[in-house]
Amino acid sequence: MATFEIRNTQFAQRVKDSFDRQGFMTHLGAQIDNIKAGQVEIQVPFSKHLSQQHGYFHGGLIGTIGDNAGGYSAFSLMAASDSVLTVEYKLNIMTPAKGELLVARGRVLRPGRILSVCQSDIFVSRNGIEKLCATMLGTFMTMAEAPDGPGDNN
Amino acid sequence: MATFEIRNTQFAQRVKDSFDRQGFMTHLGAQIDNIKAGQVEIQVPFSKHLSQQHGYFHGGLIGTIGDNAGGYSAFSLMAASDSVLTVEYKLNIMTPAKGELLVARGRVLRPGRILSVCQSDIFVSRNGIEKLCATMLGTFMTMAEAPDGPGDNN
Amino acid sequence: MATFEIRNTQFAQRVKDSFDRQGFMTHLGAQIDNIKAGQVEIQVPFSKHLSQQHGYFHGGLIGTIGDNAGGYSAFSLMAASDSVLTVEYKLNIMTPAKGELLVARGRVLRPGRILSVCQSDIFVSRNGIEKLCATMLGTFMTMAEAPDGPGDNN
Amino acid sequence: MATFEIRNTQFAQRVKDSFDRQGFMTHLGAQIDNIKAGQVEIQVPFSKHLSQQHGYFHGGLIGTIGDNAGGYSAFSLMAASDSVLTVEYKLNIMTPAKGELLVARGRVLRPGRILSVCQSDIFVSRNGIEKLCATMLGTFMTMAEAPDGPGDNN
Repeated sequence: MATFEIRNTQFAQRVKDSFDRQGFMTHLGAQIDNIKAGQVEIQVPFSKHLSQQHGYFHGGLIGTIGDNAGGYSAFSLMAASDSVLTVEYKLNIMTPAKGELLVARGRVLRPGRILSVCQSDIFVSRNGIEKLCATMLGTFMTMAEAPDGPGDNN
Repeated sequence: MATFEIRNTQFAQRVKDSFDRQGFMTHLGAQIDNIKAGQVEIQVPFSKHLSQQHGYFHGGLIGTIGDNAGGYSAFSLMAASDSVLTVEYKLNIMTPAKGELLVARGRVLRPGRILSVCQSDIFVSRNGIEKLCATMLGTFMTMAEAPDGPGDNN
Repeated sequence: MATFEIRNTQFAQRVKDSFDRQGFMTHLGAQIDNIKAGQVEIQVPFSKHLSQQHGYFHGGLIGTIGDNAGGYSAFSLMAASDSVLTVEYKLNIMTPAKGELLVARGRVLRPGRILSVCQSDIFVSRNGIEKLCATMLGTFMTMAEAPDGPGDNN
Repeated sequence: MATFEIRNTQFAQRVKDSFDRQGFMTHLGAQIDNIKAGQVEIQVPFSKHLSQQHGYFHGGLIGTIGDNAGGYSAFSLMAASDSVLTVEYKLNIMTPAKGELLVARGRVLRPGRILSVCQSDIFVSRNGIEKLCATMLGTFMTMAEAPDGPGDNN
């Protein structure tokens, strides 16, 4: 694991606050965890509300938490006055996401002043056994001197 | 618009039935419409449940309906005994999705026996004016002789 | 075709000059043509030097001219003092590139102050008949106040 | 590093033979090396013939050897009667490729009967010091019972 420059020592709280401002994450039943400099983890337990036609986790959900885990890993390295935007992401699904828990582990491959490149591996856990089901590679942009949303006082 | 070979004259109903089997689409409040051979449209009205931290449509949702509109445009050209899988997709977000309605219009660029390449343009409508906010390019796989899910009797 | 703001009326000459500075394009036997605001075309005649193992145009070459056509379509809309960088691109190959000429047609989907999103369609011409063989979707960055390379006096 | 099932004990020779059939690799001055089950390395020394407008390695070349290293890592796990096709690939360029040697290290993330997902990290070496400059994530297809090209007698 690479070591990154930390611009905001309160990054873990700021990532958590931003995540909590995303109505979509609540709607999905997602939680963020293991927030470190340049990496985060997002977990979603299975429910029928999250399924595709075969009853597995929906591919769009896999992409959603892959994107979000990548974005927040980039955000964790930003200054307290910056916010983050997704420029683009690509998802490769490797196996159907059949199981009781979906976990996306995002990490920064290369932090940048303007653009950061991040990757998330997405695992599905079935009967407690984790299996890699997808990977996400994306580009995230630093919005300098831009609040992260209503209630972000930095 | 290209003209495609139609393998299943009941494709529109089969696409709709598959969409209705996706619990995730109901959870998002999404609807499918304008189903033609090689193209479909998916619409989602805004709600706070679908927002990112700034209160706009979440990027993961944009990817979700882009992926799904691409996948169902491919599925519309498949035989009645086939089903569809997302292999991979890539989303470029061009502008924040601020508005009251999100619409993904998917189309097949190249149908294939095994793999189809599809593109979706995703528009956000604000005060009734549509704006392109993202584009999705993806690969979808035909699962021959595989039911689309429980209740698919083809 | 969208209409774009033109920041440099000499854009066609500047694109051509930049292309000529790319040793790789000469090495490939590539030519640039039909330079308009927000779109360009790159052509490469077949030779054995450009082949993959089956004797068709190599996929890496398809990506190369797809990327370059996208990048120069973005560059055509930039100010005379800016230069362009490829952030990322994705290529979907739809059919083997068997033929005597490869043509990439790039266009800007969305120009931006910092980032532009561009798409290139790549066609292979066989016995004079063109066929779509691939599509490229990519992100290109404006480097403000940065010369395009040695000899760029803007 | 994952352990993979080996279907063809002569895989290293078969990869090398296929690489040698690619006229494009010779034209680029590329060499293949360190061929193992599920991973390969491709190296290209710098020359002006490979440059973009600033005199660095061209982005299209970076994509080319990234794609090829991914494809051959997939091919190394295939049966002696199969051949390989690139379905799609995505390249993120992280830093300008300034240096004397470009090295792509490809590996299989998930081998499949029909589709394999592979990743390549591309490094540029400058004064002997390697730096990650790009990463490629792609999908490769197994063509069952298809010769790899003229001269492939398997």
